[in-house]
Amino acid sequence: MREVAIIGAGITKFGEHWRKSLRDIFVESALMAIKDAGVDHIDSMYVGCMSGGLFVAQEHLGAFFADYLGQSSIPAVRVESACASGGSALRMGFIEVASGLSDIVLVGGVEKMTDAEDVTFALATAAEQEYEVFHGITFPGLYALIANAYMKKYGLTREQLAMVAVKNHKHGSLNPYAQFQSEITIETVLNSTLVADPLRLMDCSPVTDGSACVILCPLELAKKYTDTPVKIIGSGMATDTIALHSRKDITSLRAVSLSAERAYKMAGIKPEDVDLAEVHDCFTIAEIIITEELGFVEKGKGGILVEKGETSLGGRIPVNTSGGLKAKGHPVGATGVAQAVEIFYQLQGRADKRQVKNARIGLTQNMGGSGASSVVHIMEVA
Amino acid sequence: MREVAIIGAGITKFGEHWRKSLRDIFVESALMAIKDAGVDHIDSMYVGCMSGGLFVAQEHLGAFFADYLGQSSIPAVRVESACASGGSALRMGFIEVASGLSDIVLVGGVEKMTDAEDVTFALATAAEQEYEVFHGITFPGLYALIANAYMKKYGLTREQLAMVAVKNHKHGSLNPYAQFQSEITIETVLNSTLVADPLRLMDCSPVTDGSACVILCPLELAKKYTDTPVKIIGSGMATDTIALHSRKDITSLRAVSLSAERAYKMAGIKPEDVDLAEVHDCFTIAEIIITEELGFVEKGKGGILVEKGETSLGGRIPVNTSGGLKAKGHPVGATGVAQAVEIFYQLQGRADKRQVKNARIGLTQNMGGSGASSVVHIMEVA
Repeated sequence: MREVAIIGAGITKFGEHWRKSLRDIFVESALMAIKDAGVDHIDSMYVGCMSGGLFVAQEHLGAFFADYLGQSSIPAVRVESACASGGSALRMGFIEVASGLSDIVLVGGVEKMTDAEDVTFALATAAEQEYEVFHGITFPGLYALIANAYMKKYGLTREQLAMVAVKNHKHGSLNPYAQFQSEITIETVLNSTLVADPLRLMDCSPVTDGSACVILCPLELAKKYTDTPVKIIGSGMATDTIALHSRKDITSLRAVSLSAERAYKMAGIKPEDVDLAEVHDCFTIAEIIITEELGFVEKGKGGILVEKGETSLGGRIPVNTSGGLKAKGHPVGATGVAQAVEIFYQLQGRADKRQVKNARIGLTQNMGGSGASSVVHIMEVA
Repeated sequence: MREVAIIGAGITKFGEHWRKSLRDIFVESALMAIKDAGVDHIDSMYVGCMSGGLFVAQEHLGAFFADYLGQSSIPAVRVESACASGGSALRMGFIEVASGLSDIVLVGGVEKMTDAEDVTFALATAAEQEYEVFHGITFPGLYALIANAYMKKYGLTREQLAMVAVKNHKHGSLNPYAQFQSEITIETVLNSTLVADPLRLMDCSPVTDGSACVILCPLELAKKYTDTPVKIIGSGMATDTIALHSRKDITSLRAVSLSAERAYKMAGIKPEDVDLAEVHDCFTIAEIIITEELGFVEKGKGGILVEKGETSLGGRIPVNTSGGLKAKGHPVGATGVAQAVEIFYQLQGRADKRQVKNARIGLTQNMGGSGASSVVHIMEVA
């Protein structure tokens, strides 16, 4: 397998784009990435999108976007793993470049959610339709079940959960692409509307429009395009049961630990070698558990990790410097690629006010459903 | 890149499966393929499906199917290129095995269409939603525009169009997995309900439930599992404008010729080396044009090709020995993989009454939308 590098990135402002369509935001981020990389053509394209069909009644997104990008004729495929669609698309691009089949591959992620008639219904198709959704549960409910079980087992406090949102809003306030650039306090979270006990509105990632793209090429060609390419040194994916009730222990996210294990193995590194990470904080409880599954802290101590400020900017292992899904926003199919964009900017030293000093190794973790899919990528300054 | 082989295949009966769900038919074909290949594990899985969301309100199909196949933990991703989703999934599996990342990869295609509330709406999301579908046109209408322009330009007769359906029904009558196993006559077609002039009901592929799977592995390991592996010697994909009105010439299918050109180049063969082909006859006019774009006959002579019986079983280049989309059925996401299953059976000499004698090289061509995506694979007896 050839070594693979990221040589350019692009991202739209995340938020509510009432005057832009699905194709507009995708093309905006794609052109930004193409310009950033300085490439004059694309050999192939992958697009992560959870549900063009249910959100905006448009499937066939590979050809659709290639067309509007003026690239009709290239191979272009859409990849879907629910909210892990973006990470899955990145993995496909990585494999295609590694295989030797293509040199310049554009990987995009996109979702236009604010136009949908029923966002909750569309998102719920990432869960088990016949045995979970049919009975009325939605994602806040599923993650509330996880949160309750975890709090009971490990003594996580309601305040510690809130600290995840507070930290990510603080980080988001430093990111011009974030949907929410305002800081909040623990009280803001505790006083926000109860959605599914114990989760409140400010524990939940928002509904967002947005798109993000990166350009990949073989490492051996990367220096032709940039002085600061970023290598992808590990890619791991794993699945778990689609339904929460099928799992032995709902306080763990097995697909996350497995995907991380595979990525660490490919990269030949350990969790302590990671300088910063973008993880899938769709709900505050998710970030707590994910930091444990990634090996940043022992099981049951995720709450203490955030409370001590170790995952804040300036801490031991900054997590979600972009603002994460909570503050940057969560256009579901775009999220996995947006995570890669943030790590790319950080490792290139372009993250401005939220720059992690001397960052050399970054990790992205993108998740689908209640943890049935997880994709981890590890990147290093080349 | 490593050489890749198909070592096993499975397929459900195509038709209306009122008593089986999406997961049932997928798992049925997957277990059949696993048994056929004799593998004891799977490293990774790709699933082609056009719209689990719109047909049965279930997305996240990679994890969903891995779970019900008892394979939770493996990487599993859904791939979508409208009706070319199956062919695209096959291409992803091919690339992953070729890259060296995984050895045993299951590639499936599936669609459960008969449960949907509005199949026409779901299928129309493969066209350009804002500029085509919004104005009321659906796929029979788009292909009728193509048919009218082609008939005027090249003098194709209404009877020649009908001959495609007659041939494919004859082939389908020899395939126990086909939805329609009854022969029809030219009169059957000409007297069937007018759908979109000049296309009649019997020019159109049906609404179908079905699933198909193949197991891929590196050629160097293939003999461990079967005495008769089938090599994938070429894989080509291409896109065209999503909307018909954006094309310079709607009597050609540029993505088909481009994808074929790429696959022929990789395989190092010419069209005349192909012994049989499965092509995307979603409407009769499509097969006429595709046989030209694949180089089996010169431009404008596709009608004469079928009239002379050259694409019939026993002819010079048998096309759609399975019955094609018209008679075998067209569960959209499954079609591209089902084509590979047919070629695999043919090259292994397992096609029974529809066996093409001495078949050594077979080709599959799978298309999305009105030709905006096309995927071609070329396979050879190993």
